[in-house]
Amino acid sequence: MANEYPPVHYHEYLGLDRILNAQSPKSHEYGNPAHDEMLFIIVHQVYELWFKQLLHEANSVLRIFAAERVQEKEMGLVVHRLDRMSEILKLLIDQIRILETMTPLDFLEFRDMLFPASGFQSFQFRQFEVRLGLKRDNRLQFNSKPYTSALTPDQARAIDLLEKQPNLFDCLDRWLERTPFLNVAGFDFWQSYKKSVMAMFVRDKNYVTQHPSLGEEDKRRNLEIMTKSEEAFQSLFDEQTFEKARTQGQWRLSFKSVHAALFIQIYRDQPVLQLPFRLLTALIDLDELMTNWRYRHALMAKRMLGTKIGTGGSSGYDYLKASTELHRLFSDLNQLTTFFISRSKLPELPEDVERELGFYYSTKGS
Amino acid sequence: MANEYPPVHYHEYLGLDRILNAQSPKSHEYGNPAHDEMLFIIVHQVYELWFKQLLHEANSVLRIFAAERVQEKEMGLVVHRLDRMSEILKLLIDQIRILETMTPLDFLEFRDMLFPASGFQSFQFRQFEVRLGLKRDNRLQFNSKPYTSALTPDQARAIDLLEKQPNLFDCLDRWLERTPFLNVAGFDFWQSYKKSVMAMFVRDKNYVTQHPSLGEEDKRRNLEIMTKSEEAFQSLFDEQTFEKARTQGQWRLSFKSVHAALFIQIYRDQPVLQLPFRLLTALIDLDELMTNWRYRHALMAKRMLGTKIGTGGSSGYDYLKASTELHRLFSDLNQLTTFFISRSKLPELPEDVERELGFYYSTKGS
Amino acid sequence: MANEYPPVHYHEYLGLDRILNAQSPKSHEYGNPAHDEMLFIIVHQVYELWFKQLLHEANSVLRIFAAERVQEKEMGLVVHRLDRMSEILKLLIDQIRILETMTPLDFLEFRDMLFPASGFQSFQFRQFEVRLGLKRDNRLQFNSKPYTSALTPDQARAIDLLEKQPNLFDCLDRWLERTPFLNVAGFDFWQSYKKSVMAMFVRDKNYVTQHPSLGEEDKRRNLEIMTKSEEAFQSLFDEQTFEKARTQGQWRLSFKSVHAALFIQIYRDQPVLQLPFRLLTALIDLDELMTNWRYRHALMAKRMLGTKIGTGGSSGYDYLKASTELHRLFSDLNQLTTFFISRSKLPELPEDVERELGFYYSTKGS
Amino acid sequence: MANEYPPVHYHEYLGLDRILNAQSPKSHEYGNPAHDEMLFIIVHQVYELWFKQLLHEANSVLRIFAAERVQEKEMGLVVHRLDRMSEILKLLIDQIRILETMTPLDFLEFRDMLFPASGFQSFQFRQFEVRLGLKRDNRLQFNSKPYTSALTPDQARAIDLLEKQPNLFDCLDRWLERTPFLNVAGFDFWQSYKKSVMAMFVRDKNYVTQHPSLGEEDKRRNLEIMTKSEEAFQSLFDEQTFEKARTQGQWRLSFKSVHAALFIQIYRDQPVLQLPFRLLTALIDLDELMTNWRYRHALMAKRMLGTKIGTGGSSGYDYLKASTELHRLFSDLNQLTTFFISRSKLPELPEDVERELGFYYSTKGS
Repeated sequence: MANEYPPVHYHEYLGLDRILNAQSPKSHEYGNPAHDEMLFIIVHQVYELWFKQLLHEANSVLRIFAAERVQEKEMGLVVHRLDRMSEILKLLIDQIRILETMTPLDFLEFRDMLFPASGFQSFQFRQFEVRLGLKRDNRLQFNSKPYTSALTPDQARAIDLLEKQPNLFDCLDRWLERTPFLNVAGFDFWQSYKKSVMAMFVRDKNYVTQHPSLGEEDKRRNLEIMTKSEEAFQSLFDEQTFEKARTQGQWRLSFKSVHAALFIQIYRDQPVLQLPFRLLTALIDLDELMTNWRYRHALMAKRMLGTKIGTGGSSGYDYLKASTELHRLFSDLNQLTTFFISRSKLPELPEDVERELGFYYSTKGS
Repeated sequence: MANEYPPVHYHEYLGLDRILNAQSPKSHEYGNPAHDEMLFIIVHQVYELWFKQLLHEANSVLRIFAAERVQEKEMGLVVHRLDRMSEILKLLIDQIRILETMTPLDFLEFRDMLFPASGFQSFQFRQFEVRLGLKRDNRLQFNSKPYTSALTPDQARAIDLLEKQPNLFDCLDRWLERTPFLNVAGFDFWQSYKKSVMAMFVRDKNYVTQHPSLGEEDKRRNLEIMTKSEEAFQSLFDEQTFEKARTQGQWRLSFKSVHAALFIQIYRDQPVLQLPFRLLTALIDLDELMTNWRYRHALMAKRMLGTKIGTGGSSGYDYLKASTELHRLFSDLNQLTTFFISRSKLPELPEDVERELGFYYSTKGS
Repeated sequence: MANEYPPVHYHEYLGLDRILNAQSPKSHEYGNPAHDEMLFIIVHQVYELWFKQLLHEANSVLRIFAAERVQEKEMGLVVHRLDRMSEILKLLIDQIRILETMTPLDFLEFRDMLFPASGFQSFQFRQFEVRLGLKRDNRLQFNSKPYTSALTPDQARAIDLLEKQPNLFDCLDRWLERTPFLNVAGFDFWQSYKKSVMAMFVRDKNYVTQHPSLGEEDKRRNLEIMTKSEEAFQSLFDEQTFEKARTQGQWRLSFKSVHAALFIQIYRDQPVLQLPFRLLTALIDLDELMTNWRYRHALMAKRMLGTKIGTGGSSGYDYLKASTELHRLFSDLNQLTTFFISRSKLPELPEDVERELGFYYSTKGS
Repeated sequence: MANEYPPVHYHEYLGLDRILNAQSPKSHEYGNPAHDEMLFIIVHQVYELWFKQLLHEANSVLRIFAAERVQEKEMGLVVHRLDRMSEILKLLIDQIRILETMTPLDFLEFRDMLFPASGFQSFQFRQFEVRLGLKRDNRLQFNSKPYTSALTPDQARAIDLLEKQPNLFDCLDRWLERTPFLNVAGFDFWQSYKKSVMAMFVRDKNYVTQHPSLGEEDKRRNLEIMTKSEEAFQSLFDEQTFEKARTQGQWRLSFKSVHAALFIQIYRDQPVLQLPFRLLTALIDLDELMTNWRYRHALMAKRMLGTKIGTGGSSGYDYLKASTELHRLFSDLNQLTTFFISRSKLPELPEDVERELGFYYSTKGS
């Protein structure tokens, strides 16, 4: 096209000289070529390319969130990019079945040659976790050393710095805290909501106590869970109690954020709340997919290695399986589900609140 | 076509009058139609149709295995049908994301109306588990009652009977025991194999002991795992020790079967072992997919219900998550991977053994 | 749960007596049981269940659209349900690989017994197509008879009636026509847009004419396509010319609707246009998936039958392949892409228009 | 591990310095960073990595096939690797939906900057097509120039040379020709098979002629298709006629190969034919997936570009859509399906033939 830009060739544009010459199978180097090592290398290179893209999206989302006031326009973009990240994660999960076409015996042909290389050394994956908001203190202990010990010193330092940068969890927390509709004058929303939920708990406990087929032990265990849920719910209304529960790991989001998130969830049909609701949903999706990815990864490790320790010096399966639960970031958003009540039992919004919610976020306060 | 059969209409052939009139949303019955209840019903009906197909395939596989001598021809069929079962399971897993388009709040619109209906009452799924080989004793305790207590009395009785019928696990066990190549005269395969594996363990332990970045606690834990693996391996060669380990749940397959499975895995390139190897792989795939299905199911339960107890009177997430590990059936086959050594270190097969393995299973002994 | 509703059992709730007894393989009836006929039946029953769900969603969307003024709140719901339909279609496409585990030879075991039953007799699928907006006149001719001739007389009559009911295409057309921002006073948007696009065409033609590696024939063909695109674009600004082009099948949407759709697409970042943009995207997705479904179906027919005519008396592959293009409904929305220009070249919106677009659809005119 | 190999680090092993520094967005270079250009680059780099893997597998398969006599052992490997290629293609198809998260308008932000780079310049994809067996003469004309004109001169020369190397199609052809069971003495298989198929054609034609709802035009068209099928079938038994049909493009495989493939398909249950049958199935799968990939690609091109010509100077959609059919390689294998008859009507194999088929390929003639 007679256009203003110099012509571009596919091969150079994509840097294919670098991309396609970056495969150096150890088994070839050592004179015992193992056919499947190429697969092993390429599968992991593809993972790293997608990690780069995930980071690219995560960083852009964080740049938007870093602003004092997030514009409507940009919130749509945030959701779009989080959804894209989820699409990429789905593909990463599906990709595991390609690696599983390599049998454990074929892996053994070159496995010893790679020692101690391991996925634990993926700098980008660590960056991604940090960007999402995974904190050092919440991490699974890894060989009693900081998790960055698997990285090169430069990378470890970069992670140290990155941990001080904004992350998705904190941005969400802050953004939720700022939502305007929590202190609507004269609206005793939380009081009537509390009443409805407490009635639900009474009903649920009755059910357990009178259940014809539950044994004593089960009744006890179920009532215990319920009492915990009830306490968690109670703590939503007393900041001090909440902070105590939070210290014990029952919540990660702040007192105000949890309120805002609950409000968004239950009144998500209101025009002004639709986009915030989509944001929360996008984060739940992303979190579930990350968890699922860790789990599928664990199953694959078991299949490939049995109970042997991985190349990274850890029983891959155990570590990965434990991380599925421990490294979840947005389980508060799932946890809230426990306190939902059906629309028909929701306190009705006062007319003026509803009218206000008919407009859009970005116009608040303007 | 002027053919011998009377004409058939799509609608009648597929019994669509029955299929498409079997949706009776409770929310309609009670006068508060909830749009998403239709989705809920249809998703579960589709699951049950697929369960019927899974049972159809499982039953056919068991019929073939029940024969005194399984023919080559039919072993190909067995693998084909197991692979089909895996394809179906993949779809069942993917289908979860359709149910997840229903939000927790939408579920609440009709959830109370369904009480105490629950997936625990799926007769077909229980049949399928029994057919695969899940034993009552190995099942997760469920409200301190037999797991069949959720079923109707007729269904519970049918399950009792089915548990006495052949199942896939037992058939595999018996089939492996009968494999002919384990007592090949004069072939001291296991001796030389043992030597190679023991050398591997020594090497691995050395590695742990000398690992520069492993803390004391980790060294201890890793050495413990290794010692266990080593003992498990040792027990492979002493029937008494093996049986003791088996009683403790370390193995489910019999002494002879484990030998046969290991032999098949490591010499799978031999023509006669290719189909047996594909059988083992098909079972590993199926088992992994079942496990994955349970896990995805657990994640969905958490998303839908938080920590509330499910309609079936149990905290769905906890039950389902616990079942992922406990209800695995063929983990012995993964476990064996621990004892693989690379081809280059495998004892070479004597020429006459190799020649014999050049022919096919079914011709053995003929 | 001590709740107000009578207890429900999974088995009855899901109508499993009907669902699981609706499989009557002909090959059993005729005394030559073919194992795979069960798969064939169940695969199609599952399709019909999903079709029921697709219709359920489509009908609900149409009910919302039928209102004189579509509320913001409900437009979110429309997009959500269209997205769910897309998720279902993805699963339907993936499901084809399950049917493909049946080999052509296995199909032959019972194929003759089904004659002349065929997917062409699926009443629900025809309903779904009609609901989406596929018109009788735009349909592929099918054995020179109305496409409803494959149905029962009752079903054919029902389709006749349904064709007079609202459909998604017409609803979209009407909804687009009503969009308020097309006649913003004093805003010469289309003039400046026209100028930008025409400049693009000049540039593109230059490119073709001067392309070093294009042969004369290719230049001619490319310039022809461009001239057509240019004419199509020109016709956007003269109602008479547009209507002529529309009669020739170049457009299906009305003059005003095409304008509105183009405006939404190019200014989709404006808050008020985000949801309309998501609606258009959802329809493009749905349309692409339907097309993809038809194509995958065609490939499967070829694989199963070669060039034999299908059980429905038509060469399935040819019919299905031809339908991929002919039965597309929303290709106007893809077609518009031809006239996009990059954001940097877009005419800037006057400040007052932009301000107005900062609010929401539903508040227009209030 | 105190092992014989020097330690390896993940980062270096995977060449991540090269892989992760190979993204140079033009929009950044020109000072107008477009967020989505990174996605565009990475998606294509991932494609190229998978193409490298596909080539790796294809080359290994060809090396095995190049041998005078393909061993049983290796035929299992061939099928395994073809299946892996199919798994990779499934992922490539799924990956399209990630690129589709980029909207056409976002693409426009940097599209002009890439001119004339295009997928037509993918050297590896061309290599892959050549390796599979796509011949220059069977290719879609591309701008009246050799398809290699889009490549660099070096790449074009390499393709020229590669076209003279073995390819999968030719290897299959040669391998089928050599199958031993076609001239089994005294076995008049083809005669009795012919009789059964001819009876089937008579029946099918009757059906069409007497069909109550087919119009004259449809009868004519259907009978024409049938007559063609019948002629194709007749030509299977006369080498001269066959060769004529082949010249007209009705067949690509040789006279003898078509016989062998048909024999394998219909007697695939015989032990000796199971692996050959799996080979044919693997090729059909691969071919279908390639076709599906081209089609999905075409749909995406339409979505991104409308009817505009692509960056490569061709209307992407038209080219890609036309290639789905024209570039199919193994449609002979689908075509054969037309001549299948059900097992119950198959000529029974003489006992000695059946006995011989009870053994394995590789032992033939030994």
